[in-house]
Amino acid sequence: MHKTIAVGVIGTGGMGTRHAHNLHRLVPGAAVAGTSDVDRDRAARVAAECGGAAVFDDPYQLIEDPTVNAVLIASTDSTHAAFVRACLEAGKPVMCEKPLAETAQDAWHLVQAEQALGRRLVAVGLMRRFDPQHLAVERAVRAGKVGRGLMFKGTHRNAKVPTHLPGRVVITNSAVHDIDSARWLLGQEVTEVFVRGVRTRPHFSGETVDMLLLQLALTDGCLATVEVTSAAGYGYEVCAEVVGETGTVTTAQPADAVVRLNGQSATDVDQIWLDRFRQAYVDELVGWVESVQTGTSFRGASAWDGYVSQVVTDACIEALNTGQPVQVPTPETPALYREDAAPEVVGAD
Amino acid sequence: MHKTIAVGVIGTGGMGTRHAHNLHRLVPGAAVAGTSDVDRDRAARVAAECGGAAVFDDPYQLIEDPTVNAVLIASTDSTHAAFVRACLEAGKPVMCEKPLAETAQDAWHLVQAEQALGRRLVAVGLMRRFDPQHLAVERAVRAGKVGRGLMFKGTHRNAKVPTHLPGRVVITNSAVHDIDSARWLLGQEVTEVFVRGVRTRPHFSGETVDMLLLQLALTDGCLATVEVTSAAGYGYEVCAEVVGETGTVTTAQPADAVVRLNGQSATDVDQIWLDRFRQAYVDELVGWVESVQTGTSFRGASAWDGYVSQVVTDACIEALNTGQPVQVPTPETPALYREDAAPEVVGAD
Amino acid sequence: MHKTIAVGVIGTGGMGTRHAHNLHRLVPGAAVAGTSDVDRDRAARVAAECGGAAVFDDPYQLIEDPTVNAVLIASTDSTHAAFVRACLEAGKPVMCEKPLAETAQDAWHLVQAEQALGRRLVAVGLMRRFDPQHLAVERAVRAGKVGRGLMFKGTHRNAKVPTHLPGRVVITNSAVHDIDSARWLLGQEVTEVFVRGVRTRPHFSGETVDMLLLQLALTDGCLATVEVTSAAGYGYEVCAEVVGETGTVTTAQPADAVVRLNGQSATDVDQIWLDRFRQAYVDELVGWVESVQTGTSFRGASAWDGYVSQVVTDACIEALNTGQPVQVPTPETPALYREDAAPEVVGAD
Amino acid sequence: MHKTIAVGVIGTGGMGTRHAHNLHRLVPGAAVAGTSDVDRDRAARVAAECGGAAVFDDPYQLIEDPTVNAVLIASTDSTHAAFVRACLEAGKPVMCEKPLAETAQDAWHLVQAEQALGRRLVAVGLMRRFDPQHLAVERAVRAGKVGRGLMFKGTHRNAKVPTHLPGRVVITNSAVHDIDSARWLLGQEVTEVFVRGVRTRPHFSGETVDMLLLQLALTDGCLATVEVTSAAGYGYEVCAEVVGETGTVTTAQPADAVVRLNGQSATDVDQIWLDRFRQAYVDELVGWVESVQTGTSFRGASAWDGYVSQVVTDACIEALNTGQPVQVPTPETPALYREDAAPEVVGAD
Repeated sequence: MHKTIAVGVIGTGGMGTRHAHNLHRLVPGAAVAGTSDVDRDRAARVAAECGGAAVFDDPYQLIEDPTVNAVLIASTDSTHAAFVRACLEAGKPVMCEKPLAETAQDAWHLVQAEQALGRRLVAVGLMRRFDPQHLAVERAVRAGKVGRGLMFKGTHRNAKVPTHLPGRVVITNSAVHDIDSARWLLGQEVTEVFVRGVRTRPHFSGETVDMLLLQLALTDGCLATVEVTSAAGYGYEVCAEVVGETGTVTTAQPADAVVRLNGQSATDVDQIWLDRFRQAYVDELVGWVESVQTGTSFRGASAWDGYVSQVVTDACIEALNTGQPVQVPTPETPALYREDAAPEVVGAD
Repeated sequence: MHKTIAVGVIGTGGMGTRHAHNLHRLVPGAAVAGTSDVDRDRAARVAAECGGAAVFDDPYQLIEDPTVNAVLIASTDSTHAAFVRACLEAGKPVMCEKPLAETAQDAWHLVQAEQALGRRLVAVGLMRRFDPQHLAVERAVRAGKVGRGLMFKGTHRNAKVPTHLPGRVVITNSAVHDIDSARWLLGQEVTEVFVRGVRTRPHFSGETVDMLLLQLALTDGCLATVEVTSAAGYGYEVCAEVVGETGTVTTAQPADAVVRLNGQSATDVDQIWLDRFRQAYVDELVGWVESVQTGTSFRGASAWDGYVSQVVTDACIEALNTGQPVQVPTPETPALYREDAAPEVVGAD
Repeated sequence: MHKTIAVGVIGTGGMGTRHAHNLHRLVPGAAVAGTSDVDRDRAARVAAECGGAAVFDDPYQLIEDPTVNAVLIASTDSTHAAFVRACLEAGKPVMCEKPLAETAQDAWHLVQAEQALGRRLVAVGLMRRFDPQHLAVERAVRAGKVGRGLMFKGTHRNAKVPTHLPGRVVITNSAVHDIDSARWLLGQEVTEVFVRGVRTRPHFSGETVDMLLLQLALTDGCLATVEVTSAAGYGYEVCAEVVGETGTVTTAQPADAVVRLNGQSATDVDQIWLDRFRQAYVDELVGWVESVQTGTSFRGASAWDGYVSQVVTDACIEALNTGQPVQVPTPETPALYREDAAPEVVGAD
Repeated sequence: MHKTIAVGVIGTGGMGTRHAHNLHRLVPGAAVAGTSDVDRDRAARVAAECGGAAVFDDPYQLIEDPTVNAVLIASTDSTHAAFVRACLEAGKPVMCEKPLAETAQDAWHLVQAEQALGRRLVAVGLMRRFDPQHLAVERAVRAGKVGRGLMFKGTHRNAKVPTHLPGRVVITNSAVHDIDSARWLLGQEVTEVFVRGVRTRPHFSGETVDMLLLQLALTDGCLATVEVTSAAGYGYEVCAEVVGETGTVTTAQPADAVVRLNGQSATDVDQIWLDRFRQAYVDELVGWVESVQTGTSFRGASAWDGYVSQVVTDACIEALNTGQPVQVPTPETPALYREDAAPEVVGAD
């Protein structure tokens, strides 16, 4: 029987709280060892809800604490890179919410540090890789059910939008998921991006670009299109489709019941991503804790995926700003991150 | 090129008007020769809308008029049998809205008269046999796609109900369609019926039985269940499913567009049968006029189907009244009405 | 923080093994304390897979063992009643797979014993009450979304069937679930049953009745129809629909991906109930363990539900055998089992 | 009653034959007056099938023949402009299959000629404007059901592809329909196009670009994306979606029956556009003949739509060839073609 993994949670906002609760209640073999947040009261409340975990004023102390086997980072984006670096230095497995860093260069340094260690300690929270619907698409594609994958089509809609939402934020916070899906489901790297954005409402701030349309080229002659609508109004919805040589496979829209009422036959659409990806968030942590326990490779996104995502989103921001297609360098995947590489030993010492 | 069939329309209420308009505008090779109705103005209006057809005060004159090649009966139920008999006597093809007669005995006399003539002149308006969705189910069953058909499941819902609606009316007006579907799609005859009915609202009249559940046994070990909900509220909907040995086939619910709005993904449901079966009503007449023109068997319901429907609905009424299962006699199909019979010559002289 | 509930598992066949694994891996606050099975090796294997639990040769010893806080019964149907009685005598919460007993009388004695204790210790494994799709239907109905529930329509299909399968087995093993759904979703009791059954293949044993159609009447003027097809061929599928005064609500068929291939757009259908109800089996135990931990009422099926199911299935067997509608007595729900009753204290001492 | 419109059909290949048969059998108030084709036998066969219409060796004679009230052009693309010009000169209404001409300049000359006449005689065969699913989307958008339309998303898949299929042909033959849908459903004009294309199979000719992804910008800040997959393998499918401010509306995929078989729940997908748009082709001609009979504006595509389509597809070809976004001039719609213009008198003299 594997030992219980005691996880320290840095950042206890909405996402961090969800992760802590999941670790405490729904992830076998995991426990919340401690929490840390800029809002100490919030950290303390979540710690109490998770079996009376310790509360750390200093997140670095949490990382170094000997009772903490692994770290989950859900704090502000700008803090991610430094916390991940500290985890690498402490030799502790870390699950970092996307983005891995704020610049491609910072992400690259983390990749280099991990390569220097020679083992994969970093997992990046791109949870769609654990969503049952996305996994069903991946299985079908991998099994060759629709022939070679030729095109990825992504739809990503949020119900509501803050009235100030610059295009680069839509790219780094939202489109990054779809870009990851394109890479993951096609098994190819992005080589070119073309982006157009729109401010859909006159009362949104002048800098706001809440609706984006991305067109990507990928290696091996693949293409992709991604819609990101931040103010879709009706709900939160994500759809991923792979067009292959002989057919297509698409994520089914989850539905529990069909209601016939008032001249309509209808199913409910989720309102926020925390509901839509409820199971994915659990399964992501289950997979991560298993990989930590067993010293096997995490099958979710790696530091390399985090780094490449950053490179592509940087290119998307440039494309949005210039209105021109932007070429994306596609460096070779280092040996440590290759799928066919011998599984690296990971996990707690 | 076939000659145009001049059709006389008896009864120009909602259904008869629809038929007349369809004949005039959408049925190739047909024309409206004349109309007749207890409300002469109504008959005249429809006649004018259909290319200036003649108006007959006496429906028997319409039937006998030499300019009328064929007759469509959409008048009150109680008049059907007599008008059909007159058509048989005049040797003219007739499309009679269901029911063929008001009693099984009256229907039986018409069947006998037609058999005496030795050719099929009578068609009965059970339009589902021309509905694209029902036809797709029939094709799949006939092709053996799901193995031998074992069970029919019918759903039949009306949006609204008059506050006085006796159970026998629900049986003869609504359930008769589903009974016909069961016979047609399974290719078997009903041998037993069991019926329960409910008055769903306290403000409906005491005699009202607006919701029915029927369970049928059929020849060759087949079963059927039929729901008739007359006050479904949300809309008009019909569903037919055949469970076979290796799979099932079900009518798809027609939908033109999917609307995502207010937290729902929805399609519209029709509100009345005239909309749901718009195409079926046209195709029924197209098929009928073709059969009249070419002297081939009409592939819709025959006088025999009309008679058997009456026998089964009579049994259903008895079952509803007694609360007991009622056995249904299954007389052998006369040669004139057998599917494998040599196609009888029908049509106008 | 609640104490961990140590569960003893009696019966480690397919169902018991699944329950044990779920308790061990996926149910927070639970552990497998021990196993017992007529096949000792099988019990030992499952015990080893569940963290090295103890193996009991005598299931009664397991029930009485002080390290066992609660008991799960998944042994042969004929053993259920005696084991449940022993649990009641030991004052231990017990989750018993359906059926609660083999006769209504045996079930009634258990209900009486539990009432004598004055607290609810018995839970019955009718897992659909924890299925996300069924729960969505229940929520909609309870919320009055479609008005008062008038009719329940159940479909229950197994892919394959043993070549010998008497009708009474189909009723007690399969239809019992749909009968429970009808009672649960309509909130009414069955008052009459009418049943017809068919042996669908000539090579099945003479006693086999693998396809059933049930028509039920319930209190407050409700109706129900239930199809049980044991040899559906294409897969395992369950559907539950409630027709209400203003609309209907139906379980959505679960689907992860839509594949377009070879002229079709298709979703996969599960092949066995263990896959279809994977989540329901987990959530049922999560709910049960929570109720044991917190001393609150289990929101799944009670001993009373187990008893009433038995009464109705007995009536169904009689109806199948006689071909006549059979009236079902509807005794008043004892105070201990009423939903509006003050929540009884349950759980481990 | 309106007079029957006698239509001369030029070009009796697959498309022209379908149109001729539709006119003969399914379009009220229409008749086929004559046919003409480079293959005289083919023209004669179709003429015979359509009630014994005349056969013209010279298509210009057909256009000028006094028995011909209106002309339908379904001949080779390169002949369209000249035949349309002849119809304008003869003052006869003409339905021209897309494209209206082979160059934007030729189309422009036709627009100018028609403007000089001061009435609209030219209809262009972009049949999706008559497809029930597309019309349902249009109605919802026009009714403001999903707020202002912001984005159009088009999917256009053919089952099979000739092994030689240059990208410009995919644009002018296939994408032109989706570009028209974008303009029509959003009510905006294209201002920029960006196009990427792929040859999906090594055995296709070197010049072949069978899969295209287009990204468009339109007036009023709208965007569009269009997938054209010419070798989709599984079937022929078209999907159109409009994303609005508060929701989305999408064409439903037509389906007649749901078949459950072999572990799948499936609906059939059409194999060719003649099946998918069967009804649209009929309704297009019904609408056209009505407009000719009544002297009202045809509600389908006009010469102006034909011209603008040409301008946009020209830009797409340039974008595909250069790999750069290409700006599209958006000339003001001439008064003759404005929707709010007083309906011009059209039709036969």
